[in-house]
Amino acid sequence: MTKPVFDKIAIIGAGLIGASIARAAVEYGAAGTVSLYDSSEDVRQRAAGIALGDVADNLATAVAEADCVFLCVPVGALQAVAADAVPLMKAGAVLTDVGSVKGQATEALAAAADGRVHIIPGHPIAGTEQSGPEAGFPTLFQNAWHILTPLADGDDSYGAALSMLEAFWTQLGATVETMDAARHDRVLAITSHLPHLIAFNIVATAFDMETVEQGEVVKYSAGGFRDFTRIAASDPVMWRDVFLNNKDAVLECLGRFSEDLAALQRAIRWGDGETLFNEFNRARSIRKAIIDAGQDSGAVNFGRNLPKGDEDEGA
Amino acid sequence: MTKPVFDKIAIIGAGLIGASIARAAVEYGAAGTVSLYDSSEDVRQRAAGIALGDVADNLATAVAEADCVFLCVPVGALQAVAADAVPLMKAGAVLTDVGSVKGQATEALAAAADGRVHIIPGHPIAGTEQSGPEAGFPTLFQNAWHILTPLADGDDSYGAALSMLEAFWTQLGATVETMDAARHDRVLAITSHLPHLIAFNIVATAFDMETVEQGEVVKYSAGGFRDFTRIAASDPVMWRDVFLNNKDAVLECLGRFSEDLAALQRAIRWGDGETLFNEFNRARSIRKAIIDAGQDSGAVNFGRNLPKGDEDEGA
Repeated sequence: MTKPVFDKIAIIGAGLIGASIARAAVEYGAAGTVSLYDSSEDVRQRAAGIALGDVADNLATAVAEADCVFLCVPVGALQAVAADAVPLMKAGAVLTDVGSVKGQATEALAAAADGRVHIIPGHPIAGTEQSGPEAGFPTLFQNAWHILTPLADGDDSYGAALSMLEAFWTQLGATVETMDAARHDRVLAITSHLPHLIAFNIVATAFDMETVEQGEVVKYSAGGFRDFTRIAASDPVMWRDVFLNNKDAVLECLGRFSEDLAALQRAIRWGDGETLFNEFNRARSIRKAIIDAGQDSGAVNFGRNLPKGDEDEGA
Repeated sequence: MTKPVFDKIAIIGAGLIGASIARAAVEYGAAGTVSLYDSSEDVRQRAAGIALGDVADNLATAVAEADCVFLCVPVGALQAVAADAVPLMKAGAVLTDVGSVKGQATEALAAAADGRVHIIPGHPIAGTEQSGPEAGFPTLFQNAWHILTPLADGDDSYGAALSMLEAFWTQLGATVETMDAARHDRVLAITSHLPHLIAFNIVATAFDMETVEQGEVVKYSAGGFRDFTRIAASDPVMWRDVFLNNKDAVLECLGRFSEDLAALQRAIRWGDGETLFNEFNRARSIRKAIIDAGQDSGAVNFGRNLPKGDEDEGA
C-alpha cells in the first residue's frame, strides 16, 4: 500500500465538497486519518451518522496536528474561519480552500496568515447540484481539473508544500493546474459563474410565468428548460457569495452576454433569419470543439457527463 | 401480435425525428409498412444504407396509399412540402407534422388542405442535439409528451382520425395531450424556445471571449458551461425557423428574462446579497417541483435524464 500523502487532514465544512474530499481521501489512500468539523451541530451529527471520518465537536480538535487543512465553506465565510483555524494549526502545515472565487479567497486566507502555515488557495472544477454531507462521494474529482492559485512569493518550503498538495489532488483522480487568482476568476466567470446566473434567472422568469400557464412550465420542461433547473438547484448561499466576490469579472461577461442577446432579439423582431442561422451555427461549432478537446486529451474526459442519445431536447 | 394502427405510414424528412418515428413504428408495431422520402439525395442514400424503411426516390411514391403522412421538416419548409404532398395523398388519410411552432404549422398545413385529408398538427417534446437519419432511435418518444393541436372545426370522421393518431403515438410510448396551437406556442416559448436561445447566445458570447482566454473556456467547461453547449448543438436551420415563426411569444419571454436579469445584475453591482440569495433560493424550489412532479406522475419520468451524482457542476 502506498504511503498517504498527508498523515492527517482536517476538513472544515462538511458539505458536498468537504464530504467528497473525506470519502476520496480514504478511498484512494491519500490521507492517514481524516478529521472533520462543521459549525452546524446538525451537520456534524449527520456526518458522524454516515461515518464520514473523525467528526470533532470543535475546530481545535479537528485541526490539531493536521498536515493539511481544507476550508470547504462558502467564500463569504472563509476569512472568519481561516482566522479561527490558523492559530490552532501546527507549524509548516498547509491551509487550502475549495472556493469558486480565488482573488477573494486568497485575500481572506492571507489576512489570517501568521507566517507559520503555507497558504495555497484551490478550486476543484467538480460538483453536483446536491448539498450536504450525504451528497459526498469518492469519485467526484476523478477526471476533473483542480486549479491551485499559489502565492507568488513562496520560498522552498512553500514549493515543497505545493508539491504535496498537488500529489494529494492527483491521488484523488484530479488533474492539477496552477494559475494566478485573477486569471482563474476571469476564466470561471464565463465558464461557470455566468452560466449559473443565467440558469437561476431563466428558472425565476419561468416561475413567474407559471401563474399564467398553470403548471405547464414544469410539465413540459423536457423541451430544454429542465437542463437549466438542474444547474439552478445548486446551493444559494455558495452562489450568492460567488457573485458578491467575483463582481467585476461577472459584470464584464454579463454585459457582453446582454449585448449579444439584444442582437438576437433584434434579429427575431425583424425576421433576420440569416443572422439567427449564422449565430446558431457558430454556437454549434464550439460544442464540436469541446467534444474534440475531450477526445484529444487523455487527462480529461469532457464527455463523461454526456450520455449519448437519451437526452430530451425536443423543441 | 397487435394489429398496426396504420397499415402504411409515410415520413417526409429523414432527420432525427423522422428517423426515430420510422424506427419506433417498426419496433412497436404501430405501422404495417414505413415509407420515407427526403428532398436530399444524400440523406435518402444514407437512410437506405441503414435500412430505415422503404426509401422512395420521389414524394409521390412515398405518400401513395399512406394512411398517415408525417411531415418532419423545418417549420419554414412545411407549407411547400404540404402543398406538394396533399394532392398525392389518398382520401381520408391523416396529414400531421412534428414542428416546434404550432400556430405557423397549422396555417402552413391548412393552406394546403383540399378537404380530402385530415390535418392534425403535432409536436413531440423529445429530441437530442444530434441530427440526420443516423441519429434516429426507437425509444426517443418513450415517456415523452406528444402534443396534438387539432383543428377546431372537425367532424366525426376527423374525430376518428384524431383517435387513430393518438393511438399511434401512444403505441410509440408517448403520452398524448391536446391543446390549441396558440397555447402550445406560449408554453413552448418559455419551456423550450427561450432556453435554446439563451444557450446559443451564451456559447457565442464565450466563443468571442475565448480569443482572450486562449482555449480555457473549452478546457474548464465542466463548471457549468458545457450543459449549455449541448443544447446549443441543436440543428441551426430548425431553430432559425422556430424563432422566425414564434416571434411574439418568444419576444414576450425574452423581455421578461432580460428585465429579471437586469435586476440580478444590479444586485451584483450593488452587493445586494439578500436579493441574490432570495432569487437563487426561489429558483431552487422549482427544481424540486419538477422532481416531485416526476415522482408523482406515472406517465412521465421527468428524472430519466438526471443521472445522480456524476454531473460536473463545480463553480
